[in-house]
Amino acid sequence: MMTTLAPSADVLKALNLKGRSFLTVADITGPEIQSLIQLAVALKQEKRDRKPHPYLAGQQVAMYFQQPSTRTRVSFEVGIADLGAHPLMLRQDEIGLGKREAVADIARTLGRMVDGIMIRHLHHADVEELAQYAGVPVINGLTKDHHPCQILADLMTVYEQFGSLAGHKLTFVGDGSNNMARSLMEGCALVGMPVTIAAPASHQPDAATVERCRALASGTAVEVTDDLQAAVAGAHVVYTDVWASMGDEAEAEQRRQIFKAYQVNEPLMAKAASNAIVLHCLPAHRGEEITHDTLERFATVIFDEAENRLHAQKALMAALLTR
Amino acid sequence: MMTTLAPSADVLKALNLKGRSFLTVADITGPEIQSLIQLAVALKQEKRDRKPHPYLAGQQVAMYFQQPSTRTRVSFEVGIADLGAHPLMLRQDEIGLGKREAVADIARTLGRMVDGIMIRHLHHADVEELAQYAGVPVINGLTKDHHPCQILADLMTVYEQFGSLAGHKLTFVGDGSNNMARSLMEGCALVGMPVTIAAPASHQPDAATVERCRALASGTAVEVTDDLQAAVAGAHVVYTDVWASMGDEAEAEQRRQIFKAYQVNEPLMAKAASNAIVLHCLPAHRGEEITHDTLERFATVIFDEAENRLHAQKALMAALLTR
Amino acid sequence: MMTTLAPSADVLKALNLKGRSFLTVADITGPEIQSLIQLAVALKQEKRDRKPHPYLAGQQVAMYFQQPSTRTRVSFEVGIADLGAHPLMLRQDEIGLGKREAVADIARTLGRMVDGIMIRHLHHADVEELAQYAGVPVINGLTKDHHPCQILADLMTVYEQFGSLAGHKLTFVGDGSNNMARSLMEGCALVGMPVTIAAPASHQPDAATVERCRALASGTAVEVTDDLQAAVAGAHVVYTDVWASMGDEAEAEQRRQIFKAYQVNEPLMAKAASNAIVLHCLPAHRGEEITHDTLERFATVIFDEAENRLHAQKALMAALLTR
Repeated sequence: MMTTLAPSADVLKALNLKGRSFLTVADITGPEIQSLIQLAVALKQEKRDRKPHPYLAGQQVAMYFQQPSTRTRVSFEVGIADLGAHPLMLRQDEIGLGKREAVADIARTLGRMVDGIMIRHLHHADVEELAQYAGVPVINGLTKDHHPCQILADLMTVYEQFGSLAGHKLTFVGDGSNNMARSLMEGCALVGMPVTIAAPASHQPDAATVERCRALASGTAVEVTDDLQAAVAGAHVVYTDVWASMGDEAEAEQRRQIFKAYQVNEPLMAKAASNAIVLHCLPAHRGEEITHDTLERFATVIFDEAENRLHAQKALMAALLTR
Repeated sequence: MMTTLAPSADVLKALNLKGRSFLTVADITGPEIQSLIQLAVALKQEKRDRKPHPYLAGQQVAMYFQQPSTRTRVSFEVGIADLGAHPLMLRQDEIGLGKREAVADIARTLGRMVDGIMIRHLHHADVEELAQYAGVPVINGLTKDHHPCQILADLMTVYEQFGSLAGHKLTFVGDGSNNMARSLMEGCALVGMPVTIAAPASHQPDAATVERCRALASGTAVEVTDDLQAAVAGAHVVYTDVWASMGDEAEAEQRRQIFKAYQVNEPLMAKAASNAIVLHCLPAHRGEEITHDTLERFATVIFDEAENRLHAQKALMAALLTR
Repeated sequence: MMTTLAPSADVLKALNLKGRSFLTVADITGPEIQSLIQLAVALKQEKRDRKPHPYLAGQQVAMYFQQPSTRTRVSFEVGIADLGAHPLMLRQDEIGLGKREAVADIARTLGRMVDGIMIRHLHHADVEELAQYAGVPVINGLTKDHHPCQILADLMTVYEQFGSLAGHKLTFVGDGSNNMARSLMEGCALVGMPVTIAAPASHQPDAATVERCRALASGTAVEVTDDLQAAVAGAHVVYTDVWASMGDEAEAEQRRQIFKAYQVNEPLMAKAASNAIVLHCLPAHRGEEITHDTLERFATVIFDEAENRLHAQKALMAALLTR
């Protein structure tokens, strides 16, 4: 869908995010998201062409995981190495953020030794404190409240599929109160994609978030409903996520009851636009939020989306950390 | 024992394994094993001479460990780095292959981000599924059924000691039904080394494996017996392994009773060829499968064998992954 | 405080520690400590100036952690990568030093594959055995008895603050029987800094250690007292550490009672020299061994000290491992 590719160095030069942290999608603007996607597309092509792009040569980037991870871990580690930096993998049972040592002290220690920090940690306020004290850019690799890097990959995938973002309707199906729904609302609002959250009344986004996203959207629709069929009608992107996110595992059975009507399956996809795609941030629980058949029919784009974590985050790190 | 060394690049060029996976010894041929050993010997010398050989520069290789490991871990990580690639260390408690996420989904995710995968995982069928879906070469770093990388190192060590492989008799002493016995039978059969498994009747290789290995052997003897003394008579290589492998720990005491007559010790070694060596894949349990004195008398060759994991696996990775 | 900086290569050339292990501060001499600090200061400046110093290019250095760690982990990993080598992070639950496998066997295996080993492990005798069998330099990253790398960073920080070491009085406040007190006594003795351990009678250094340090000191005072006020009088450096070190956690409450009079706080600091600094090896337990206010008033120098772990250990590794 792209006819010409700007070399990544040119796109990077035009971005002005150096030294910033990235904790929520709304930390950057719609045009900055668009530029990061351009950069990601360029880096993806350069990787396929085996053109090195060591923008972070000589740097060291820490990855901190309170929660286990496959995509976040592999995409960040590969991305950091692709950019010529050294990745440090730090685990909660090694560092004990806020347990073995105060967040502000760990932040100041890490900030003296590394050039950037990616963190996956449930408690968002800890990540904010880390960013406040570290003195180096902090990237949110997932909190209970936000998952902004995933959204960069998602929007990049929409761009690859449709050639543009604005005007393409995205419907999120499932737990509308979780981090994915919140970050998708922010991202769609900023780039002009109409977004609908289809969720049971008990698990819809809070009113403040909806208001905030409508303000970001400047006119693009930000909708919330429990009417799944109406929500999916005409959608270009149907997005779903597991019913029990990290931290919710204890309520898994209860959640199966709450969300059982909100499954993405073939009859539902028949309501969407004829060229609609399914996105899923993975891991998937077949037979719960999505059927095996629908997952496999859209497997190519869903694993494109997973791969795009790599390229989108490389763009982000290059923008925040290149000296 | 080698008089001239082909530079590794020449040996590598003659091998034709690019893009293949390596899940069992029998995935490759006897001549290919011989070529990999030549390549390993060349890489070992080049490392001693500090001649860089970054055949995998710019690549990224994942190492996945369901089971803890010392030799597999260190030899693969050092080997990947020696070859100029970036190693990613992934743990079961991080990725949860087949637990947190379906094998096929993890395979497709990893395959989008890395250039090769080494996996240590008990269930062999999962490793086969990983290789089927990943789209990049998968290397078996040990399953309950096979340990093919160990055999490459073992045969390399035999080659270093005796200058050739064919005709040198290897006797394995211990649990003849485990992965080491199976993979040794395959390896010896393919390179023309007579192989005898000395094991109690209750723990001998299954008949199908023996048949399959005899077919691979084209005439070289593949024997199974519970007569330890006869089995070791004239052997050039006496091989042993712990009595309770990974996954067998619960039966450790019971296994001590079953295998207590199958110890490698000085009286037993007196039956072997006068220039016989002892090999052991380690870790060793002194006083069980081998005595302290015998282990220490053969410590140089046993730690050569451990070191050769590094060189043999580098040869393998260079052959499978060099672009 | 430094007016001219020797380039690191010149300082390194003058050091003669190649191939040695570093298990206690007293493994090296006072002049060697001074030279390592010069080297660390040069490397720190070169890192700020982004001048690469890949003295260990092509090498591989293992880091072995029985105990969790933040500063030791990050400083060694960043330092190894800064020096152009590849760091391997090995955990106790992976390797099982002395549990899964005999120390001497792990030593010989690692020594065949890596160029140096940093180890954090409670039992000092195991670290000595590792160094005896590995055949490559071993660096003590903390044992129950010694913490020598911390002392290199501490003395570097004193040097940065005061421009020299000899004659500056250091008072350690807290558990005088622990590894920090012992290693500080050795370090101060070797560089001519008067050192006083202020500790309750039940937790003072053993007599043999005091005797040994006095012999190293050649005249510089090495004192032990339970009179905290007298001990701090005129001190240039007031040093403290958590009351319950690694391995002592079970006695934490009991230790709070024992050490409650030995807190570093503002009234105590009023007794010290007017230009006195506080050092703390971190993590800190505010309200126990140090008050929040005192920690924050000296935060800049305390996090300098943490950062200096990186530079001092880079100097050490360059000295021990450069070919």
